[in-house]
Amino acid sequence: MKTEECNFNFRHKVGDQNLVIAIAQDYKTSEVLMVAYMNEEALKKTIETKKAHYWSTSRQKLWLKGESSGNFQHVEEIRVDCDEDAVLIKVSQKGGACHEGYESCFFRKVVDDKLEIVGNKVFNPDEVYDKS
Amino acid sequence: MKTEECNFNFRHKVGDQNLVIAIAQDYKTSEVLMVAYMNEEALKKTIETKKAHYWSTSRQKLWLKGESSGNFQHVEEIRVDCDEDAVLIKVSQKGGACHEGYESCFFRKVVDDKLEIVGNKVFNPDEVYDKS
Repeated sequence: MKTEECNFNFRHKVGDQNLVIAIAQDYKTSEVLMVAYMNEEALKKTIETKKAHYWSTSRQKLWLKGESSGNFQHVEEIRVDCDEDAVLIKVSQKGGACHEGYESCFFRKVVDDKLEIVGNKVFNPDEVYDKS
Repeated sequence: MKTEECNFNFRHKVGDQNLVIAIAQDYKTSEVLMVAYMNEEALKKTIETKKAHYWSTSRQKLWLKGESSGNFQHVEEIRVDCDEDAVLIKVSQKGGACHEGYESCFFRKVVDDKLEIVGNKVFNPDEVYDKS
């Protein structure tokens, strides 16, 4: 079997961080769940623990997906793109991926200049996130 | 039907450009084909022409996907994520999406610290791209 060395290219710069784009896709349904960034540490932890970790560019910290909600992403497979600056992680998503309670963050469709909700709501954010 | 206003958040900054992340997914197979960025003009042209346009951060120019290869992406549906800084475009892909000749740019799987080719090669780049 032909294999190659793996050289991730953390070329996306946000603040002082060097990042790859990370897309999470449901392993079974192939639904695209979310997109975020990973720095080297987040990607390493994702590979080691098989739980998706990201770099939160808004909070500027390492972010274990599900740490607040319990909606962890168990990583089944990791793909990398041609220029190695983006990864596609195929995951088993506990609960929903979106903090608004939907299976996927991409729960709205663009119709003309409006947004129409087409995704499935699977939990109530008020019951999941600690507001204190 | 509940609809909302659409306010894309071009918060990703590369050089002097304000961008959204744009993921292309095959409309029929749900395979994730590629990820790139769009500036406001690229997104507008994508919506108007139903052909995917991106902002090439390496070439720093508007990029009609398929302009060199003929492998255009016909846009069937556009989704936007919760914070409106990323779009998911569901496309009918002519030929393959990847400049290396594969259906998807994510044609390699990470196995330990190696990459294993798992994608389908659907064209020969040497025959498609003008090398002159």
